[in-house]
Amino acid sequence: MPKMIRRLIALAAILFVSTASAQEPDPLPSWNDGASKQAIVDFVTKVTEPESADYVPIKDRVATFDNDGTLWLEQPMYTQLAFALDRVKQLAPEHPEWKDTQPFKAVLEGDMKALAASGEKGIAQLVAATHAGMSPAEFQQIVGDWLATAKDKRFERGYTKLVYQPMLELLAYLRDKGFTTYIVSGGGIEFVRNFSEPVYGIPPAQVVGSSIKTKYEIVDGKPTLIRLPEVDFIDDKDGKPVGINQHIGQRPIAAFGNSDGDYQMLDWTTAGEGARLGLIVHHTDAEREYAYDRESTFGRLDKALDDAPAKGWIVVDMKNDWKDVFPPEN
Amino acid sequence: MPKMIRRLIALAAILFVSTASAQEPDPLPSWNDGASKQAIVDFVTKVTEPESADYVPIKDRVATFDNDGTLWLEQPMYTQLAFALDRVKQLAPEHPEWKDTQPFKAVLEGDMKALAASGEKGIAQLVAATHAGMSPAEFQQIVGDWLATAKDKRFERGYTKLVYQPMLELLAYLRDKGFTTYIVSGGGIEFVRNFSEPVYGIPPAQVVGSSIKTKYEIVDGKPTLIRLPEVDFIDDKDGKPVGINQHIGQRPIAAFGNSDGDYQMLDWTTAGEGARLGLIVHHTDAEREYAYDRESTFGRLDKALDDAPAKGWIVVDMKNDWKDVFPPEN
Repeated sequence: MPKMIRRLIALAAILFVSTASAQEPDPLPSWNDGASKQAIVDFVTKVTEPESADYVPIKDRVATFDNDGTLWLEQPMYTQLAFALDRVKQLAPEHPEWKDTQPFKAVLEGDMKALAASGEKGIAQLVAATHAGMSPAEFQQIVGDWLATAKDKRFERGYTKLVYQPMLELLAYLRDKGFTTYIVSGGGIEFVRNFSEPVYGIPPAQVVGSSIKTKYEIVDGKPTLIRLPEVDFIDDKDGKPVGINQHIGQRPIAAFGNSDGDYQMLDWTTAGEGARLGLIVHHTDAEREYAYDRESTFGRLDKALDDAPAKGWIVVDMKNDWKDVFPPEN
Repeated sequence: MPKMIRRLIALAAILFVSTASAQEPDPLPSWNDGASKQAIVDFVTKVTEPESADYVPIKDRVATFDNDGTLWLEQPMYTQLAFALDRVKQLAPEHPEWKDTQPFKAVLEGDMKALAASGEKGIAQLVAATHAGMSPAEFQQIVGDWLATAKDKRFERGYTKLVYQPMLELLAYLRDKGFTTYIVSGGGIEFVRNFSEPVYGIPPAQVVGSSIKTKYEIVDGKPTLIRLPEVDFIDDKDGKPVGINQHIGQRPIAAFGNSDGDYQMLDWTTAGEGARLGLIVHHTDAEREYAYDRESTFGRLDKALDDAPAKGWIVVDMKNDWKDVFPPEN
């Protein structure tokens, strides 16, 4: 590259940097000023400023996010469960026997008590009927078709519009600072992959989640993957560090969760050497979203809430720390 | 950003692009001109030129590479097997009973026939003794220490210097053109992760491989992962598309292998819609490397070689297509 051009680029870069830094907008506008926001900004600053004692090179800036209750709504039930229930209703005409067979009967009659009573076996049957027997791409299509029309009753909005605006800003802020952001969800990996890129800016390869087994098969002469009705991996509690190691191959330096299912991910992350960030979203806002913790069926937060101060984990008080909860309607 | 600065940047960019394209060096200097090199360049051009009918957006430019025999040497045995054998010798003083127990006795006596006779059970015992009982980070350290000193006898070089220069150029060329490059190895995922970034420019999260189970545990009050002596996943043959789907979540548009273990990865990749590239490295160069295919214990290439023409897979003739095999000594 000729010298003149190099000089022009250098000049432009200098001018750009010097004007930009004076005007840099708040990267977290939906966070109220306070201890939580400050702790996030302090952490990011100290691991990214080159002269900092806690500087972390870009390749090690790994941040992991739980999904249900951390990036999007998980009440009154996990969205993936709402999907499975709707899917049973949709498929019911092809399965007249379901009217008299549990757990399908319970789903069709809206009897949540009977559904809960069907236990793990019932859940496994639901998963088999609604999540297996097709390729991952076909499954994602089914999920996408459902998400395009299904709505949460209370907020009268599609589920992908019930993501947390402050967390979207946090994801973008971290990526802007050289972090790679991953979802590490107890939910199904292919379920989340359907929307992770358009909604969170997280590509399919950066989604870790629970999975069922998949089989390679030649169908009508074409190589195909088929989802099997058999659990492969549960990416929750102890499973989260295992799943992170398997997919990412590095210990994160920052982890974000909201329930005891995230305890081990937070603990493993923040036990590493150097500066670490662990953060829990505490749902304290019954008016704008929900208020729940120790007694909740979905997203139970008990031990992690007790241990957070000693572990140095930030507990975000949704009601006071978040200016907005959901993105603006459009 | 003020208008003047935007103009300066635009001007610099235009000048830079127009001078650079006139001088663009050959991205594959270690490939002789011929059908293989031309097919690679044609494929990359047609999926990356914006006006091309076969244009593929950056997010879908996924390329997967087998490791043993495709990116580095796999003769006279897989490097990971050489590691396991050396490791047994290193640990033997702590295990006096190994002198009289198979498969360890065979390893210590260099009796490859007796080792082969120990079969799958023997291999499982070797893996348990040499690959399990420590954290993934500790295992990678052990691998790194070994790779730093171990040498291939014939070439008198460390194994990470016995990578194929033309393939290093191909990896860099694809990345330069917006591809994300993954390793999809039948070898152990944590073994390959030790060197994938410095040697191939492929970070740990972009390595797919075989794995043993890992358990999360609190040891001396610290959260730890421990590698267990139990196979989790075999990333070979049918397993390669399954592993790719699990880790990457997308079907690649280009796949590179050298043996029948890569058949399903090549087949699944090239059966997708739009422009696809499947490539097989055929080891035809006994003088500079090795010549082997249908009868080889390691890297057997038989069915994939037969089917390559009908499938449209490029078969690289190492002897004639590659100007250099290994990187220059330094």
